[in-house]
Amino acid sequence: MHVLIVLAHPERKSFNGQLVDRAIATLAAAGHTVELSDLYAMDFDPREHPRHYTSRACLDRFDVQLEQRAAAENRSFASDVAAELDKVWRADLLVLQYPLWWYQPPAMMKGWIDRVLAYGETYTSRLRYDCGKLKGKRAMVSVTLGGPAATYAHNGRNGDIELLLWPTQMTMHYVGMTVLQPFAPADVFGDAIDPDVQAVLGEHLDAFERHLSDIDSLPVVPFNGWSDWNDKGQLLPSAQDHSLFMRQLR
Amino acid sequence: MHVLIVLAHPERKSFNGQLVDRAIATLAAAGHTVELSDLYAMDFDPREHPRHYTSRACLDRFDVQLEQRAAAENRSFASDVAAELDKVWRADLLVLQYPLWWYQPPAMMKGWIDRVLAYGETYTSRLRYDCGKLKGKRAMVSVTLGGPAATYAHNGRNGDIELLLWPTQMTMHYVGMTVLQPFAPADVFGDAIDPDVQAVLGEHLDAFERHLSDIDSLPVVPFNGWSDWNDKGQLLPSAQDHSLFMRQLR
Repeated sequence: MHVLIVLAHPERKSFNGQLVDRAIATLAAAGHTVELSDLYAMDFDPREHPRHYTSRACLDRFDVQLEQRAAAENRSFASDVAAELDKVWRADLLVLQYPLWWYQPPAMMKGWIDRVLAYGETYTSRLRYDCGKLKGKRAMVSVTLGGPAATYAHNGRNGDIELLLWPTQMTMHYVGMTVLQPFAPADVFGDAIDPDVQAVLGEHLDAFERHLSDIDSLPVVPFNGWSDWNDKGQLLPSAQDHSLFMRQLR
Repeated sequence: MHVLIVLAHPERKSFNGQLVDRAIATLAAAGHTVELSDLYAMDFDPREHPRHYTSRACLDRFDVQLEQRAAAENRSFASDVAAELDKVWRADLLVLQYPLWWYQPPAMMKGWIDRVLAYGETYTSRLRYDCGKLKGKRAMVSVTLGGPAATYAHNGRNGDIELLLWPTQMTMHYVGMTVLQPFAPADVFGDAIDPDVQAVLGEHLDAFERHLSDIDSLPVVPFNGWSDWNDKGQLLPSAQDHSLFMRQLR
């Protein structure tokens, strides 16, 4: 298996960076090959922007989907996006590694999603969800949480972590990927040097190693697909409900 | 009232830009003053990054919260963040205007949140939620949705819009702001020139004008606060539940 890890953290020595080091070692030891996109080291530009399009489909007005589709058809993506797409296409598993900032991915990670998962290239209006163009690949979110685990429960002040990860995981499903159970350790503070905190982080590293070693037996996060919706995009009464709305009631 | 509108869209002529124009006209006509941060026009850098800190609290390792707190104490924020904070502090109402991309704000908007809502300046570990440092100010999300309205219902394939906006709205509550009912028009396609689509967009503009004209009577989005949680950060049995988990059951 070939793995692409995308890392979005401004400090390579951070715990997010340590998780990546452990992932690379674990996956390599199991015989897999691994590629890393360290977005901060690459100085990746997360802004979807007209200046990234050297050949514009429409000069009068910048329409993101129109330009993405034209770039996909003409193979004229900006070099940084083209390089990321090459990595995505050759990967069997995509791992997104980032800290949860303000309940969502950092701008750097969000921009990789905005720019790389381009219309025409990774999906079209017909080829999305269970028919997405990246069908056959797997994806996993690995996200560090700054607060205590109890606060990410359904009644916690940070909100249910499964609901908080839904938008990012649904994005992976949208382009056709099979979404594996996420790794979401809590109590991760930036640069803690307290021995108790270090012990917790060490346990997280070991848990991540086990998580990645079990990759073929990890549960798949369920999402609905085309056959579950009516022509208004709403669930059919006969469909099993994997919506954001229903998930937490399981 | 003084209003700060933050716009994150790469095309000023887009419908997002048109909503901003209507907002400015509507608010000015009602006697309010308005300031606009057009993040693309400003070429705002959404990446929280060590290079933005000219005076580092710790050179060995870049810790975001540590550096933000030190910058707040020493008044040493990067000039772009300092300028945005000046605007935030003088505003009575903050309006975030953006298109929903991949169920979340574009990287440009997320980066404004990551960098400007700085630790020490807008919140501390004690001064957050209903005690957040921006207490007394109001905030409103105005977000355009590319899909049909029915798909953002609780049983729709895009998910309940109220749940999708929770992370961004909770962020505003976290720094102490009162969150007003959002404006979230659906069926907004990038550069539609179809007369039927233009008619829909025209109705959205009029609806936004009414929304902003009713600003003092708009419902407030409820969130829990310190008195609702136990010392583990979980809801007390006596508290009314405004969590992400419970909201959609109303």
